[in-house]
Amino acid sequence: MFAGVEAGGTKFVCAVGRNPEDIESLIEIPTSDPASTIRAAADFFRSFDQSRRRLAGLGIGSFGPLDLDPGSPRFGQITTTPKPGWQNVDMLAEFRTALELPTVVETDVNAAAFGEWVWGSGQGLAHFLYVTVGTGVGVGALVDGKLLHGEHHPEMGHMYLPLSPNEPDSFAGICPFHQGCVEGLASGEAIMKRWNTKLCDLPDDHPANELEADYLATFFSNMTFVLQPQKIIVGGGVMNERLLQSTREKLLKKIGGYRASLGNRSAIDDYLVMPGLENRAGVLGAIALARRNS
Amino acid sequence: MFAGVEAGGTKFVCAVGRNPEDIESLIEIPTSDPASTIRAAADFFRSFDQSRRRLAGLGIGSFGPLDLDPGSPRFGQITTTPKPGWQNVDMLAEFRTALELPTVVETDVNAAAFGEWVWGSGQGLAHFLYVTVGTGVGVGALVDGKLLHGEHHPEMGHMYLPLSPNEPDSFAGICPFHQGCVEGLASGEAIMKRWNTKLCDLPDDHPANELEADYLATFFSNMTFVLQPQKIIVGGGVMNERLLQSTREKLLKKIGGYRASLGNRSAIDDYLVMPGLENRAGVLGAIALARRNS
Repeated sequence: MFAGVEAGGTKFVCAVGRNPEDIESLIEIPTSDPASTIRAAADFFRSFDQSRRRLAGLGIGSFGPLDLDPGSPRFGQITTTPKPGWQNVDMLAEFRTALELPTVVETDVNAAAFGEWVWGSGQGLAHFLYVTVGTGVGVGALVDGKLLHGEHHPEMGHMYLPLSPNEPDSFAGICPFHQGCVEGLASGEAIMKRWNTKLCDLPDDHPANELEADYLATFFSNMTFVLQPQKIIVGGGVMNERLLQSTREKLLKKIGGYRASLGNRSAIDDYLVMPGLENRAGVLGAIALARRNS
Repeated sequence: MFAGVEAGGTKFVCAVGRNPEDIESLIEIPTSDPASTIRAAADFFRSFDQSRRRLAGLGIGSFGPLDLDPGSPRFGQITTTPKPGWQNVDMLAEFRTALELPTVVETDVNAAAFGEWVWGSGQGLAHFLYVTVGTGVGVGALVDGKLLHGEHHPEMGHMYLPLSPNEPDSFAGICPFHQGCVEGLASGEAIMKRWNTKLCDLPDDHPANELEADYLATFFSNMTFVLQPQKIIVGGGVMNERLLQSTREKLLKKIGGYRASLGNRSAIDDYLVMPGLENRAGVLGAIALARRNS
């Protein structure tokens, strides 16, 4: 039995189990201050650990930015997040101290990518991306069978994109750091800021749909040119079947035949897909990381 | 002794030697039709091989796109290049047959990145980019100590970028595949199309300088967010000291403090640098690849 936490800005999803078909228990804890939130998560795992079978390890997929440099004295800490109270929280040490289990920490999106690799739409691939389009935009990447980290973990959601010809006048995005990055233009928060509602609550012919597909297709084209993955798996609260279809259509045009194997719609349909683990890729990925670490 | 070819669209640079301080001979052959160009290069190496010391291997850093999938029947071939006559040329087989040497082929930019890694500005790094801004824009990448290949070799020069606020009206770039990609907007060919001259022949206060720095800084910000390299090495015919300085200034602002270690100008000065091997990174990288392959 392994423990997994998907530590997000709005909730911590905590689960105990072995794989997607064998999850003993799963809870969601609203994210409040660090001490209360981590205590609630640890209490859930501890009660499980004491009353039932033993836990062999914990995996954490966390929001960030995180220090993931194994040589750094701050390894495992959240660093400069704008989220009040969460700067410099030592996710790794807090959970390790609370639970005394072998503990591994990754970015939320890399954990989700790992989950998709082990049990989802990324099985058997050497190179793929897991993209979440939700409150923010994040990407986890597998390159040559390894989770991608450079000198710092990637922050691909901050890529600057061309403004869509469908963009209403003078919207500059909602990212406080970068005017015109994909998170600023295409996240759930950006949609809410433009139209005061969620994409799924807007009618099919609302311009928000085409605008969102424009940005995602441009972003996925760029990611294709840089990392040349075998698949792009896209999930998150903003994604839906309608948006997936229109994004595929635009992606085919934007790649423009430049990768021969992506030159027709049926190839694009296999290339840009939804997560096999649906909205549980993050927490299941955390369990998969715990298992690998034990 | 090793042989290296930097096979470009305008010339083939051919050299024989062991390292940057021990180059026995170097010639440049104008790129004409494939048969004549490859024959001229092979003749140079063959004459050397027969009359002086033996060659132990050949490395080729070639323009593309190339098929670099080791499992493909077309491995080592140029594929869909718009360059007349060069479609489907089998670089690997042609040179192997002509010279009967152990032969290795890579993209031109990955070869240059490898050269910079072994002898240039990338020494000792695990993650860095080599960018050339010349007739086109290309990027070779080292990730975790390995040259980056996904399902296909990267084509990072085709990344779509936001139009610069300094862009003259209605210029859509010169790329036939992608309206608004960095190669289309910021390559030497794009500069020539806009102003009918080279950047280095324009005065310091010409708007071309700021425009070029805008695009390169945006591109390098995006590459930073995706691959998080330790350094970006930038060469090619368009680069010069003045452009490097203004690009650094803009890059600092565009990263916007989002990677803490790149939050000041002196860090950016160490991060964005010129090639240690100057304009010989490509051919020296080809020699380094031949050496590793032998």
